[in-house]
Amino acid sequence: MPENFEYGGHRDKLAYPLGVYCYAWPIVATQKAAPLRGYTATKDQLQTRLRRIEGQVRGIQKMVDEDRYCIDVLTQIAAIQAALDKVALGLLDGHARTCVVGAEPEIQDQRTAELMAAVGRLMRRG
Amino acid sequence: MPENFEYGGHRDKLAYPLGVYCYAWPIVATQKAAPLRGYTATKDQLQTRLRRIEGQVRGIQKMVDEDRYCIDVLTQIAAIQAALDKVALGLLDGHARTCVVGAEPEIQDQRTAELMAAVGRLMRRG
Amino acid sequence: MPENFEYGGHRDKLAYPLGVYCYAWPIVATQKAAPLRGYTATKDQLQTRLRRIEGQVRGIQKMVDEDRYCIDVLTQIAAIQAALDKVALGLLDGHARTCVVGAEPEIQDQRTAELMAAVGRLMRRG
Amino acid sequence: MPENFEYGGHRDKLAYPLGVYCYAWPIVATQKAAPLRGYTATKDQLQTRLRRIEGQVRGIQKMVDEDRYCIDVLTQIAAIQAALDKVALGLLDGHARTCVVGAEPEIQDQRTAELMAAVGRLMRRG
Repeated sequence: MPENFEYGGHRDKLAYPLGVYCYAWPIVATQKAAPLRGYTATKDQLQTRLRRIEGQVRGIQKMVDEDRYCIDVLTQIAAIQAALDKVALGLLDGHARTCVVGAEPEIQDQRTAELMAAVGRLMRRG
Repeated sequence: MPENFEYGGHRDKLAYPLGVYCYAWPIVATQKAAPLRGYTATKDQLQTRLRRIEGQVRGIQKMVDEDRYCIDVLTQIAAIQAALDKVALGLLDGHARTCVVGAEPEIQDQRTAELMAAVGRLMRRG
Repeated sequence: MPENFEYGGHRDKLAYPLGVYCYAWPIVATQKAAPLRGYTATKDQLQTRLRRIEGQVRGIQKMVDEDRYCIDVLTQIAAIQAALDKVALGLLDGHARTCVVGAEPEIQDQRTAELMAAVGRLMRRG
Repeated sequence: MPENFEYGGHRDKLAYPLGVYCYAWPIVATQKAAPLRGYTATKDQLQTRLRRIEGQVRGIQKMVDEDRYCIDVLTQIAAIQAALDKVALGLLDGHARTCVVGAEPEIQDQRTAELMAAVGRLMRRG
């Protein structure tokens, strides 16, 4: 993210190629007026969640090393899936607000198409 | 379960309480006669997959740090979900063969119930 | 939303309370300029898909009546889930374009929150 | 299902081609001794659930006809997905008990593979 990038005003956004400078997270962190709602998270919160998920994946490796009961390992995998779903919903939410609704009208259409393709991949899981 | 079956070093685990010592992976690794099929993986293969998933999660942290486009981050999350689904199916398969079909008749019923509960959690994602 | 936009006969619906009159389908059917893309469908296409899904559900009832192999029944259920996912993505897409991006600025925020809640329910399946 | 088919004793099962005569539901309906647990359902219960799902799909058609709010339609779709998941889990459970655990040893392996393939399709949704 370039310094002095004024995001809320969408100032130099159109100077950049479509889909390159649009981040769900920074606007939320700086947009003081808007209440943080539901899925939306700041960049720091997002990184904290991702580190926790990384720790959960390492935890599963340890469980396998220790020959823990497979059902317990599967329960942990389902928990990671749920945590990843939450992160994904947070990103989708930020993207929808910032990069779709907040985009210049001429690119909203493509941005919506991208959003829906991402939702489809998440529903089918990859 | 054949007699004298060497259960990856866990030979007499079936004497242990239900649901505590039953691992999907070691039996597969040592059961030379049975072809490795579909989802089933050895413990090493499982750990390799889990380390790769751990790396993918760290990759996402890096993407967020570098303010990469959120749709690309979401695509990576969907890829991790797909990789976790594969690991889960491998464990389910091993568990079904070893700890359900291969279990003593008197515990097969509870083992099947556990298996189905795990499938339900995976379908609902946590 | 352009003035004099003929909203499939629902022209002044935007005067109505939030979240009550916003349909993904009619605008798509009449908005001639916009190419129909990916998931978006007209109301007729949507009804055709829903009738086909209804037929698939009846087909499963027949399979159960005829004592067909359960794995084949399960394959049909997965096919219905996939068809429902497609319908859902079509509605989400139409909703995002019409009722979120195309909404008055003061309600876009709540509309986005509703959209994300719907995506979350679909990812968790209910 | 042929008349006089004695299921619980697996009597003439092997006379039939693999995977043709194995139904999750009838054994449950007649196996009086076994308590109905969790996901398992009789054939009648299964048909009742499927008819209810069929009604839900028709309900969605009506909602579209009446131009109901798309988010409400999506909520109904998620409810149908959840109901189908329940039916699928019931079938998987019955199949696992009857057609996998209860099968002759020489076909248990293929039956488990079929079961896992079905779980994979349900997790990926088609």
